[in-house]
Parts: sequence; C-alpha cells; structure tokens
Amino acid sequence: MRWDGWGDPSRAAEKLPAGVTLLLTAVLGHRPRRAERLRLDDVELTTPVLDAADVAALAAAVGPDDVRTDHDTRVRHAGGKSTPDLVRRRARRQAAPGAVVLPGSEADVAAVLRIAAERGLAVVPFGGGTAVTGGLGPDAGDHRGAISLDLRRLAGLERLDEVSGEATFRAGTRAPTAEAALAERGFELGHFPQSFEFASLGGFAAMRSSGQNSAGYGRFDAMVTGLRVVTPTGTLDLGRAPGSAAGPDLVRLFLGSEGALGVITRVRLRVHETPAERHFDAFTFPDFRTGADALRRVTQAGTGPTVIRLSDEAETAVSLAQAGSIGKALSKGCTAVVLHEGPAGVARSRRDATAAVLTAAGGRPASRKLAEAWHRGRFGAPYLRDTLLEHGVFAETLETATTWSELHALRTAVTEALTTGLADAGARHRVLCHVSHVYPTGASLYFTVVAGLPGDMAAAWEPVKARVNDAITAAGGTISHHHGVGTDHAPWLEREIGEHGLRILRAVKKELDPAGIMNPGTLLPVGSGA
Amino acid sequence: MRWDGWGDPSRAAEKLPAGVTLLLTAVLGHRPRRAERLRLDDVELTTPVLDAADVAALAAAVGPDDVRTDHDTRVRHAGGKSTPDLVRRRARRQAAPGAVVLPGSEADVAAVLRIAAERGLAVVPFGGGTAVTGGLGPDAGDHRGAISLDLRRLAGLERLDEVSGEATFRAGTRAPTAEAALAERGFELGHFPQSFEFASLGGFAAMRSSGQNSAGYGRFDAMVTGLRVVTPTGTLDLGRAPGSAAGPDLVRLFLGSEGALGVITRVRLRVHETPAERHFDAFTFPDFRTGADALRRVTQAGTGPTVIRLSDEAETAVSLAQAGSIGKALSKGCTAVVLHEGPAGVARSRRDATAAVLTAAGGRPASRKLAEAWHRGRFGAPYLRDTLLEHGVFAETLETATTWSELHALRTAVTEALTTGLADAGARHRVLCHVSHVYPTGASLYFTVVAGLPGDMAAAWEPVKARVNDAITAAGGTISHHHGVGTDHAPWLEREIGEHGLRILRAVKKELDPAGIMNPGTLLPVGSGA
Repeated sequence: MRWDGWGDPSRAAEKLPAGVTLLLTAVLGHRPRRAERLRLDDVELTTPVLDAADVAALAAAVGPDDVRTDHDTRVRHAGGKSTPDLVRRRARRQAAPGAVVLPGSEADVAAVLRIAAERGLAVVPFGGGTAVTGGLGPDAGDHRGAISLDLRRLAGLERLDEVSGEATFRAGTRAPTAEAALAERGFELGHFPQSFEFASLGGFAAMRSSGQNSAGYGRFDAMVTGLRVVTPTGTLDLGRAPGSAAGPDLVRLFLGSEGALGVITRVRLRVHETPAERHFDAFTFPDFRTGADALRRVTQAGTGPTVIRLSDEAETAVSLAQAGSIGKALSKGCTAVVLHEGPAGVARSRRDATAAVLTAAGGRPASRKLAEAWHRGRFGAPYLRDTLLEHGVFAETLETATTWSELHALRTAVTEALTTGLADAGARHRVLCHVSHVYPTGASLYFTVVAGLPGDMAAAWEPVKARVNDAITAAGGTISHHHGVGTDHAPWLEREIGEHGLRILRAVKKELDPAGIMNPGTLLPVGSGA
Repeated sequence: MRWDGWGDPSRAAEKLPAGVTLLLTAVLGHRPRRAERLRLDDVELTTPVLDAADVAALAAAVGPDDVRTDHDTRVRHAGGKSTPDLVRRRARRQAAPGAVVLPGSEADVAAVLRIAAERGLAVVPFGGGTAVTGGLGPDAGDHRGAISLDLRRLAGLERLDEVSGEATFRAGTRAPTAEAALAERGFELGHFPQSFEFASLGGFAAMRSSGQNSAGYGRFDAMVTGLRVVTPTGTLDLGRAPGSAAGPDLVRLFLGSEGALGVITRVRLRVHETPAERHFDAFTFPDFRTGADALRRVTQAGTGPTVIRLSDEAETAVSLAQAGSIGKALSKGCTAVVLHEGPAGVARSRRDATAAVLTAAGGRPASRKLAEAWHRGRFGAPYLRDTLLEHGVFAETLETATTWSELHALRTAVTEALTTGLADAGARHRVLCHVSHVYPTGASLYFTVVAGLPGDMAAAWEPVKARVNDAITAAGGTISHHHGVGTDHAPWLEREIGEHGLRILRAVKKELDPAGIMNPGTLLPVGSGA
C-alpha cells in the first residue's frame, strides 16, 4: 500500500483520464497540473521514538523483531486514508507513533496493554490502516507516547462451521484473504466496502462498516455473531446464540468501539454459500426523487436485491463521462444499478420482483453494461483520488443516513453546507451524491466533493466539514452511516447520543480501561472526562 | 386479566378437553381432578403498604388517584405469569409491592424515580405483567420497600411516518391496541408472541421479545429503531438513523435491560403495510432431524417465510390429539407449519421457493388445515395451562437457542436434564419440543413440560429448572432465546457473558442508577455488587 496514498503502488495512475481532465477543467476553470511528490525518506518526524526501556519491555513481551521503531514503519502507521490524512502525508514535518508493535497472539495483545498501562503509553489499534475519520493518528492524549498496535500477525481463518454458516477469523485478517479462504470451501462473506482490498475484519467490526452488498447481506454489524475483545482489564468472549434475550447484546457495545474500549482479536461471522447466480441490471429515472422513491418501494416490499444504488444527476453524468459516454453524460436523469445474487432460481425470482417494482415506480430499463461497469470499477475511486491530489485537486467523500421521509431535506441541507462552505473558501467545486445503502425505514446519502481548494487544503477543508457536520446533526441525520466517529466526528457525537449516551460510553471505558490508554481522542472527544 | 392465571377470565375453561384428559391420564397414571381455588380477598399480604409519607410524596408527583395501595391492585402486581408465579398465587401468604404507581407522562416517571431514590424505594417497571422469568416480583433489595410502576397510562400511537414505515408509540401501549391503531392506517407491526393479548410494547423491548412471525419480520430487537428511556439520573433519546456508525448502538444496551437501567417510555418501530396475501401450508417430515435440516436450508436460502416452525414427534402427536385427530396422533413423524405473507405476487413466489426447498429436503405436503389450526390456537396454550394447574397438573415452558450444528446436542442435553430431574422429583411427565425461531446460523428450541409434580410444585420444579439451566450453559446454548433473564436466570448470566460482561452492565447501572433502585435482583444477580 502506498504510504502517501491509496492502494497498490503498481496500480497508481500518473495521468488523469482524458474525460476526467475535461470535466475538471470545466469545473475548476483551469487544467489540473501534476505536482512534485515528497519522498518518504524526506519526512521529518516530530514525535520521538519510544524510550529504550519502553522498547525493551515491549520486546520482552512480543519479541524484538515485532517492535518496530524504524522511520519507514513509523511513517506508514502515522494515520489513515482520509483526504486530509493524505494531505498531511505531503507535509515535510509529520507526527508518528513512538513504535509499531505486532502482537502474534491474544496473549501478546494482553501483555502489550498491560505494559502500556504500567508505562503510561497510549495504544492505537491498527488493522488495515484504511480509516477515514482520523482514528489512527498517533494521539498520545495525556500519556508519554503512543504505540501503533498492528494486528497483521493475528490473521487467518480459525474455524468454518459449514452447517451453521459461521466462520471464525482472527481479527487482523484482511478482507481479500478472508474471502479467498471462504471461497476455497464454497462460502462467501459478501462484505465489499470501498476499503475491501486492504481493510481487516477487526477494523470492519470496530468501525461498523457497511459494504456495497449491504442490501443483500446486511451491514457488517449484521454479519457479526460473536467477538473476542482484549481490554486492559481482561478479555471478553461475546455472542452465544443467533438469537438471545440474555440481557443486552454486549457484542453491539464493541461494534463501533473504534479501539477505545479494547482490541478486537477474533470475529465470528455469518457466511453464505457462494451465490449460484448473479444478475446485473440498470434502470434510469427522470430525477433523483423518483429514483429514491423507487428504491424505497423495493426495500419495503422486500424483493431482495443484493445491491441497489442510485446516483444523482451529477454523479450519473460523471460516471457516464468516466465510462467514455460523454454524449450520454449530458442527458438528464439518474441511473440506478441493481445486482441480484443467490441460489439458482431464487436470484431470478428476486430480480423479476425488483424489476416489477422499479418499473412501476417510474424506472426504465437501461443497459446492464452500466451495472457491470460500476462493478468493475467499484474499488477504483480512491486510486483516482490519489491522482487528483497529485494534480492539486481536492476530492473527498462524506456520508450520513436518515429516514426516507427526511432524505431529501437532509440532502438539501448537506449540499447547501458544502456549496456555501466551499464558496466561502473560494473554491470552485462539484458535489455528487448517491444512495447506496437502503433499509426499510430509510437510507444513506453518500457525497463526493471535488474542489479546487486554495492554499493548505486540509486547513481550508476543516471549516467546510464542520459546517456539514452541523447541518447533518441539525437535520436529524447521523454523523456517520459507515465511516465511523474517529477523532474527526468525535465533537459531534454528543449531539447524536446525548450527554447521557456519552456518560454511558465513558463509564464503560473507565471500567475496562481505567488508565485511558486505548486510542485517546477517538470516539470519545478529548477533555470529555474519558 | 385473571389475577391468579392467564388472560381474560371469560375465556378460562373449567374443564379440560376430552383429548387432553385422555392423554394426561396416560402420562400421569391417573385422571386429573379439579381443586379448590383461592379467592383474591383471602390472600394475606406479607409485605406492608408504603409509609404514609412515601404515599404522599408520590401522590404529589402523579396525583392521588394514581398511587394505589388497595389490596386488589397490590395483589395483581405481585408477580408475572410463569407457572411458579401462578403456583405462588395459590398460596394464602404472598408478597406484593408497597404501592402501585401509574405515571401519566415521562415527567411523572422522572419524578417517581427521583422520589424513590431520595426515599430509598425500589422501582419495578410493570408493562403488561406477562413476564415469565420473575422480573416483576416485589423485590426491594436493600431498600425500604418496592413500588410497582405500572405504565398503562403511557399509552397510544404518537406518530406514524407512513413513508418511512416507522411508528412511535408510548411504551405502555398494549400490543393489540398498537396493531389496531396501525391497522386503521393500513400498517402492521407483525409481532405476535404468545403474550400478545396482554403484553406492552415497552415490555417487548425491555425483554428482547421474539414473536411467532420472527422469520418474516425479525425479533422485536430488529423492529426497534429508537427508544426513549428515563433513568434515575436523566433521559436518553436513542436511535437516529436506520443505519449508523456513530459509535456503539446504545439502543441495544436498553433492549434486554429489563427495567434494571431505567424505564423505557417510548419506542419507535419499523412497521410494514398490511400484507396483501397470506398463504398457510403444512409439511410432514419423517423425523425431527430431517425437519430441522429442512428449516435450516430454507433460512439459509432466504426464501422468506413469515412463519416456519417444526414440532417434534411428541408435540406433533399432542397437537393432532388436541385437534381431535387421535388416530393421526399415533402416526409417526413431525409437522412443520409455514406461513407466507407479503405484497401481492411476492408472497406467492416466496411460498413456491420455500415449498421447493422443503420438498427437496424430505418434506411431504400435509393438510393446510394443520397450519390454520395452529394459527387459530396460537394464543391458547396459557389458557390450557390455567386449567391444567387447577387440575393439579404442572405445565411449564422453557427455551434456548444455538447454532444449527449444535442444535441436536443441545436438545438432547435439555431433554435429559428435564427427564432425569423430573424422575428424581418422582414426577411422571411428558416433554415436547419445537423450533419456532430460525436464523441463518441457528435456531431456538422451545420445550413444554407437563408433569405430575408432587407437593409444593414451585419448590419441586426449582432444582429441575436449575439442572436445565446448567445443561443449557454447559452445552453452549443461551440461557434464554426470548423469555429474558429476570430473577430466575440471573444466577446463570455470568456463565453467558462472563465476569467482564457483568462488570460492564454493573458499570452502566452505577452510572445511570447510582442508588440501585431499578428492579433490584432482575438481570443482575443480587449480591453481585450492582
């Protein structure tokens, strides 16, 4: 993975696609130009390496090879992959953890937490490193220093119960490795967020991830049947039955805990047989409102698509332009992409039922190539973002969710916050939006922003993002549908869950992590008593 | 509702049906005979009425008419509806709350909790009074006395969002009232547990109820999109969007909180349009194992039944006998009952898909009258239990859940604990079992026991039930799939969620209820530091 961008360096594009350059020139008023890149060796770290005594104590626990203090490893664990993170990667002076520790077992994790608590070191759990809300920064809080706890060695399939359709993985397993292990046995997890190529299963659980197939297989939350969590004061083994009334479901307290309560070391997941059939379809709607209403009807009727997503007019135009159909891109309308999977026969009858509802709600069948193109390119956007950034163009995404009845008001509020915020920042821009996660009672809204932000792009973006967060909470939306809280959204969490909600989380943290070493500032805002 | 039994007194049967008498005579070795009933007026309460000063303080908060200390009201709030509860109702000397308080608003609830904390009184929230795990007993813990907080005045539909399919009810609303209010607008909740006729929506949430249509509409957990909870230290308003990654989902911390953390005053629920179509079907399987495997295949394929349940050989025989088919009752085999509902067309294609899977898995279509008979009689068992009890016959149910791969081992373990326990108690008996809640990864097991327990039936049952609970936890099952923890299962909770799980619940309780007034002994075992 690139240290200063997304993904496999061999897949990084130096040049912007011609269609994108054309669009951008129109949006920004100038042709974007490639800038010089900083070399990793030239980064100056502003935070020191851990003391020799700290390193020795950790090395005694996990082995000397698995406590890393070299420049390269520290820089690569300095943060996540939000656009502001990547902008910060372009500055010469950067903060990084005092060491990167790679535990090889649950016992190692427990030992590292004990040593960290004793020695006053903060611990930042690190899965695939793909977080986009700031929860991976080397924030030591009130502690002497911070260590990054990289879980890559805690990887692999532990058990597959083929009868029950349940798989137990070590939490550091990367998603593609997990799918490959399952595929060998004829099973699939079916969780494909945009971070799929690099993210870890423990990270999905800690962040309450939601993947592109969520309509069919649910959010990651819904896939988790059990968790093992190592906290500074002990270990929890949660999730005993597929349905239970044995008090509150404590698994749900660790889904979304973002490393602030403990380290998820093992996840038990619902899996399904590799689908026998797969059908792609696309539909066109005259406008976003009609399209969203059609998606609502499908979801409430329960016809069972695996994927159902709708781009607004602006995103539809860009998608068509990227696919080389500039002519079509100028046509009005919104495209919806649909995928049905499942056992033979079942997938087809689901597809027919969905098509009937979409058509009755004003959709017209479009070329299924649009759906296939979406599927081929579905992990590509972050690569394009890298190339844009290298051309001085700021591209970022943000997301929220609400009920169907409030969806359009929320979309208007967020769009207005973005456009006025960016205009105030003197940035020409384009805002795109889509619905990609649907529920019987509501849906998510996912926004992509492309802007010609002047000066320090991260600093210029901050007030715009704050204005958006204010607008989301004022309009009753959630501060995040699937990116999480991290440090970036932490100041808005109280508006979402209330003072007493925060008090509950603080009480649990105090019980499990009395020294407050777990990921300070993430989830719970700093200075909030946690 | 009967004070010493279940349900509407006008529907209580004095006589046992002829088929049941015949069966029972065979099981018990004698013909059951009707016993004398205790009159409510003859009950002697062993716990005193609250002090006059307590009553005055409460009356000042909610009004004098809504603080009840009369004999009748106190006796009617003395406990729930488990068979041991009903056996205790037959003893002359009984414990009851010191007063019954009926708040008329959330502000009233907050005021009552404040007064109770100040004056050292325990508070037992009371919805429909249908609990079967002991959580409604007038247990004062370390406090001077206990009040029953009856939520019947906090009733009614507050808002129906027809677009989003979301309804907000006050928590004291009884289930039939809720369904009637929704039906007027063309909607349905679709939650039909056996307690349906009397239970409240807040009770469903507090106990993590699961209804007969759970295959189609999910457990009550899955229907809840938001909660309002009044705790001794403040009020929470939780659940902001249909999907969120804004930290842990705190709604889930109050589902299953059983009145031990606060009082649920409002529930927001996912509802659906009244189904356009309804299709009943029945299938016969050669044995329970084949039938259970067929249910697993249906659930994992996701064909979408609303109800799918399978009786074991013994229960199948009793059902057929009750329906008057003694001849058929002697035939071998297990009956499965299936219901498909939904929008026109969708329901039928779901039904065809389910039938194909069941048939391929060894099922033979049977008369749909069996399914219709189940549906007609689905709330009848507790009425029959009353009549049995009046004839000196002990009838009780218990339930658990596990993964599909462990289902048969768990069934064997529970059956063995029951049969050896009852044999040790010198009781002739019959054990019936069914699967009525299915999930992709597993299912529930529901046991019905009919026994000729000698002497004090509640005392004789206690060691049998303890043996079953030990067997369930040892076999990896959950201590309850949908009845809850209450006081009865509280001693087993630590085996389910671990020492750290209990520590988390205690920390949350301490934060929200520092005086420990909320439902002492329920959920968290007494003397556990909570």
